[in-house]
Amino acid sequence: MSGAVPQHVDAHVVPCRGPGDLSGVQALVEAGTLDPRHIVAVMGKTEGNGCVNDHTRDFAAMAWCHYLAPHRSCTPQAVHAQVALVMSGGTEGVLSPHFTVFTRRAALPHEVVEGEKRLVVGIAHTRDFTPEEMGRQAQIAATAEAVQAAMRDAGIDSAADVHFVQVKCPLLTAAKVDDALGRGLDTVTRDTYESMGYSRAASALGVGVALGEIDAARAIDAAVLHDLSLHSARASVSAGIELEGNVVIVLGEAAGSASPLRIGHALMRDAVDTAGLRTLLRTHFGLDPEADAALIAQRLVNLLAKAEASPDGRVREARHTMLNDSDIHSTRHARAAVGAVLASVVGRTALYVSGGAEHQGPPGGGPVAALVRVA
Amino acid sequence: MSGAVPQHVDAHVVPCRGPGDLSGVQALVEAGTLDPRHIVAVMGKTEGNGCVNDHTRDFAAMAWCHYLAPHRSCTPQAVHAQVALVMSGGTEGVLSPHFTVFTRRAALPHEVVEGEKRLVVGIAHTRDFTPEEMGRQAQIAATAEAVQAAMRDAGIDSAADVHFVQVKCPLLTAAKVDDALGRGLDTVTRDTYESMGYSRAASALGVGVALGEIDAARAIDAAVLHDLSLHSARASVSAGIELEGNVVIVLGEAAGSASPLRIGHALMRDAVDTAGLRTLLRTHFGLDPEADAALIAQRLVNLLAKAEASPDGRVREARHTMLNDSDIHSTRHARAAVGAVLASVVGRTALYVSGGAEHQGPPGGGPVAALVRVA
Amino acid sequence: MSGAVPQHVDAHVVPCRGPGDLSGVQALVEAGTLDPRHIVAVMGKTEGNGCVNDHTRDFAAMAWCHYLAPHRSCTPQAVHAQVALVMSGGTEGVLSPHFTVFTRRAALPHEVVEGEKRLVVGIAHTRDFTPEEMGRQAQIAATAEAVQAAMRDAGIDSAADVHFVQVKCPLLTAAKVDDALGRGLDTVTRDTYESMGYSRAASALGVGVALGEIDAARAIDAAVLHDLSLHSARASVSAGIELEGNVVIVLGEAAGSASPLRIGHALMRDAVDTAGLRTLLRTHFGLDPEADAALIAQRLVNLLAKAEASPDGRVREARHTMLNDSDIHSTRHARAAVGAVLASVVGRTALYVSGGAEHQGPPGGGPVAALVRVA
Amino acid sequence: MSGAVPQHVDAHVVPCRGPGDLSGVQALVEAGTLDPRHIVAVMGKTEGNGCVNDHTRDFAAMAWCHYLAPHRSCTPQAVHAQVALVMSGGTEGVLSPHFTVFTRRAALPHEVVEGEKRLVVGIAHTRDFTPEEMGRQAQIAATAEAVQAAMRDAGIDSAADVHFVQVKCPLLTAAKVDDALGRGLDTVTRDTYESMGYSRAASALGVGVALGEIDAARAIDAAVLHDLSLHSARASVSAGIELEGNVVIVLGEAAGSASPLRIGHALMRDAVDTAGLRTLLRTHFGLDPEADAALIAQRLVNLLAKAEASPDGRVREARHTMLNDSDIHSTRHARAAVGAVLASVVGRTALYVSGGAEHQGPPGGGPVAALVRVA
Repeated sequence: MSGAVPQHVDAHVVPCRGPGDLSGVQALVEAGTLDPRHIVAVMGKTEGNGCVNDHTRDFAAMAWCHYLAPHRSCTPQAVHAQVALVMSGGTEGVLSPHFTVFTRRAALPHEVVEGEKRLVVGIAHTRDFTPEEMGRQAQIAATAEAVQAAMRDAGIDSAADVHFVQVKCPLLTAAKVDDALGRGLDTVTRDTYESMGYSRAASALGVGVALGEIDAARAIDAAVLHDLSLHSARASVSAGIELEGNVVIVLGEAAGSASPLRIGHALMRDAVDTAGLRTLLRTHFGLDPEADAALIAQRLVNLLAKAEASPDGRVREARHTMLNDSDIHSTRHARAAVGAVLASVVGRTALYVSGGAEHQGPPGGGPVAALVRVA
Repeated sequence: MSGAVPQHVDAHVVPCRGPGDLSGVQALVEAGTLDPRHIVAVMGKTEGNGCVNDHTRDFAAMAWCHYLAPHRSCTPQAVHAQVALVMSGGTEGVLSPHFTVFTRRAALPHEVVEGEKRLVVGIAHTRDFTPEEMGRQAQIAATAEAVQAAMRDAGIDSAADVHFVQVKCPLLTAAKVDDALGRGLDTVTRDTYESMGYSRAASALGVGVALGEIDAARAIDAAVLHDLSLHSARASVSAGIELEGNVVIVLGEAAGSASPLRIGHALMRDAVDTAGLRTLLRTHFGLDPEADAALIAQRLVNLLAKAEASPDGRVREARHTMLNDSDIHSTRHARAAVGAVLASVVGRTALYVSGGAEHQGPPGGGPVAALVRVA
Repeated sequence: MSGAVPQHVDAHVVPCRGPGDLSGVQALVEAGTLDPRHIVAVMGKTEGNGCVNDHTRDFAAMAWCHYLAPHRSCTPQAVHAQVALVMSGGTEGVLSPHFTVFTRRAALPHEVVEGEKRLVVGIAHTRDFTPEEMGRQAQIAATAEAVQAAMRDAGIDSAADVHFVQVKCPLLTAAKVDDALGRGLDTVTRDTYESMGYSRAASALGVGVALGEIDAARAIDAAVLHDLSLHSARASVSAGIELEGNVVIVLGEAAGSASPLRIGHALMRDAVDTAGLRTLLRTHFGLDPEADAALIAQRLVNLLAKAEASPDGRVREARHTMLNDSDIHSTRHARAAVGAVLASVVGRTALYVSGGAEHQGPPGGGPVAALVRVA
Repeated sequence: MSGAVPQHVDAHVVPCRGPGDLSGVQALVEAGTLDPRHIVAVMGKTEGNGCVNDHTRDFAAMAWCHYLAPHRSCTPQAVHAQVALVMSGGTEGVLSPHFTVFTRRAALPHEVVEGEKRLVVGIAHTRDFTPEEMGRQAQIAATAEAVQAAMRDAGIDSAADVHFVQVKCPLLTAAKVDDALGRGLDTVTRDTYESMGYSRAASALGVGVALGEIDAARAIDAAVLHDLSLHSARASVSAGIELEGNVVIVLGEAAGSASPLRIGHALMRDAVDTAGLRTLLRTHFGLDPEADAALIAQRLVNLLAKAEASPDGRVREARHTMLNDSDIHSTRHARAAVGAVLASVVGRTALYVSGGAEHQGPPGGGPVAALVRVA
């Protein structure tokens, strides 16, 4: 924890009945289980399409802002500066809408766990981006800086102790494209849906640079969405219409933390690969997916994963149709597939599976982190 | 085989580049691997939406009819009477479009396997249904009769030897509803998409009655889509716009068959349940999903499964959003989820996963059969 | 005005940048043009799918509640009891998202217009409905009573002076269906999308009964969605997931009103019929669609219309494909078509065109009302 | 007709019950009304999504090939070289699926109309394009050459006599993108849906160059989809997965033709602009849209039009949501809107309205041609 005050970090997974429903959160607060002043980040899965016009994300964010404002004695809008609200749209297939609420407070001396690393969390924001910066070098560099700031905020010294970096990034709308064109500048794309991919890609490259997984010299404009050899095994990026800059949440472990939780990560090599997750559960947490279903049900807090349609059009050598489907975007297909695969391993459907894994894990695959309560 | 001539039944899984692409089939025929005169059934997964206006099904059927007609010296239209063409639309998520081609011919004496049951196949058709009969008692009864006819055609004496019954059934279109209304009669629903569910449901009840899984006295109009306690563990029904009556394919095992294939079946209790399939592979076929990936890749011909969104709105106690999604029909969500879950077990994505499992397995679950080449 | 205090009713059409964006409203309030304490009803067109999972409607309603609460010194939730918030989802094609904000206050003596009827507005609510009541007689009767209450609220004596009745009604969700089943009762349908049609249909029949257009004795359970000869030429009903009972807004004219607006109505016989609207504009308001484009741009406040896919599958004798399309719901097709047709007549795209016109105008057609500022 | 043999050109509009249904065509052939040997072009509106995975286009083309092959004594595949089969997917809103069948034969001497220009038609094909050529200069230049070849085939000397140029062009699929990447080359985009826009745009620029509407020096790679000041008022381009090169159909008028038909064209300035069409009908054909509905019903053969969502995100100054909608592609919205607007003018829904009007008419607008039978 590099001299910082020891943290006590916890996480609650709260189901909701709709994007604006915080009755479950309210119940936890009223029961004294959750202190709204300690909330540092919320990672929500909301039931929209996860694409450009997914208003369930800003709906949920508005509900959180109005809910937290009186608890934090600020305006609803000012909540954004205090709490990292990351809403990822899309609960296709079996996925169940929910919020993962992270709290952080100074640990009491007797709470600190000696000799074992435990969960810590850190937050940072980039500045707002102009439309023409998105999906390009400026976004890569600013994201890398923000990741390092968030590591410091978490008290993590070594990139090896970072297990998941969640970034929320903006996208281009028709209005933003227009704005750039009006100033004589061009955006990386004029297609709003495609802009989500560019913004996620640049952000993921930034994470990889910060964690030492990607050589900064190669993370240039031309690499974005093109040099698929570059990827971070711990980046997770979601694009949303409701913000103008990137928000970065670093999840990792540090000695001296007082958290009752641990975190680890694995890779899915493709959308149906469960070997990494099975091994992680067995070796890192001592949980066997087939024999220990009841224990997993008790101790697993959440899986955090990224999904994408394999960009070469194939899964296990056979053609898939996700990239040619003009009725359902490929990110929706991918979340449905990966969400169900992960649910079949851990027996739980309220999982954070987010779409669009450009430079996040190998092509067609993606990172998966497990948050587990210590026995 | 009840005195019938011993059958030699085989199955080929052939990928396609589009619904009308039979170049893979043609290559097998030209190589002498597949004799088009022996084809008795084709079960296709085509890349449409699997719902009312999925024209990839009739497109594929038209391609097959034009391809087989000269080989069978009949008109394209007459192929339907000779070969059961069952096209199931929808390859959401990782699923890969393909055709499973079943051949049947008289076995040569030396081919007959003694002492072990092997794959047999039988086919039957019901009469055409009027719009007002669909989804009702008339369709249940006619389907039950056709299943028994197909069992006789397959040479199966006991319902216990039936492992999968594929039915293709018609649906209501606006024109058919109109036709009934014009004659003063009402159809079971006026919603064309909903009619697919009614037609599948009545057909599945018919299969259950024929196999002794469902008491015929309870399989009445009012039970269709309502009495969810009634189900068949071996029925698989797809609805399509391209036919007017039901086509029934019975897959099972019989002593005295000469097939190089075996078949077994299991149940998925819900969309993410893999325990039954894992047990089937281990006990019935001696294949361990984790240890024997290479053997499974060699010997597995196909999985045949049904998928549906749990009608109570929950999977493993958590809310899903498939039934409230007005952008993507629930059958599409369900195929994406179940297809990926099965693919994660067997490492293969060209799987026959068909949507809409009303009375086919327990609510939210469904049957899954495995076709496996004998070692 | 039957002895009531004379009303001053006005209407503002305010564009928005998203479902939660009230910056345009706020600007009008800050400019003194709009007094938030006088708002009695808001009819919004929001940019969702207009079907079951359209959360843009409750998002907009939440934004309005939070915005109005401090102005009306009540909680956000209590705003619903003071202001009729009707959010209709779906701005397909050229339609532009906006809010039509109706204000009502006591008229000052010098404002009252003598000798000419002018716009008045009245509001009423039904009680909440149980899931099993929806789409049935109970909803019809309660709606008819509410329409009459709203007429009294508006100061309208004669049904002939009613030109538009907007109803917002609830729909069935999977949870509500479950609730009824759990109590041993069945709902009119188990399909959530279909329930929107039933709820709209029963509500429209209620409007027709109240206005004397439909014989109450014929407005029975069996007539709902079936006896298409029954319809109201002035009913407009939208279904939404965010409420449990019906909200009724009556728009009409009365002598002694002080409004600067008039209202009239016409019928579209089918989705491409503009003759009625053209005649209404010419005869009722003295505006010729081709010659007076500039005047129409100045004086037209809004068109309020309903759209539906012709239930017989034909428009002008030719087959349409809206009812068989499983990728896009027919209400979305119909709004796109009717919205563009109306826009081509009046040269304006911020129009209130709402989908699902069951018993609202003749089959395949619908009512259209024009709100026009007096010259 | 520049010395060529006088043509007798006719056009039949034939409804269909599905993409593969040619029963209406067959009936005309059997009645002697249509001679299949004279068919030179078919422009179909099929009921798919009109985007990448719209297989109704190749389904219809396959049906036509199998139907025409025996009549033309060639293989089904060889029909493509003899008849320009242009299938445009998408019948959103009120549009009705149909085929417009153009026939051409040598005119008998007494049939030639003296002193009045009448309809002529000409056809040409480009070579197949490599994936990397699509959407670029190579496609522009080849299209321009093909338009001039088709004008010669039609017997048209002056570009002023060309009223509609229909081009069918290929699109990029995941496989084609892969192929280029495998050869170390990049395609104009890797997004398959976006590739349709590039291919249409380059083809339209080619038409404009050929007709003298666009300066060839400006029709360069960088102009494609970017320099929106460049457009042809007579180009109509559809992209389809079923071909590798462009097919060009020129429709115009020439003296000495024996056709019973005339053709004229107008511009829609935006998606709801009917002024140009109304003027065309009145001045060119003497038909008043409001007074002469019955005459129009008799004499109008078809409208041929292009539709697109205004790329600046606005129609008549108000925001539209077509470009930000990730559930329904903007081309589908635009066809629904423009199809209904045109239908409201001419009282007919079997209209050829094709989506994606890049460089085809002004931004957000498009060309519309009217085929009218001479009184």
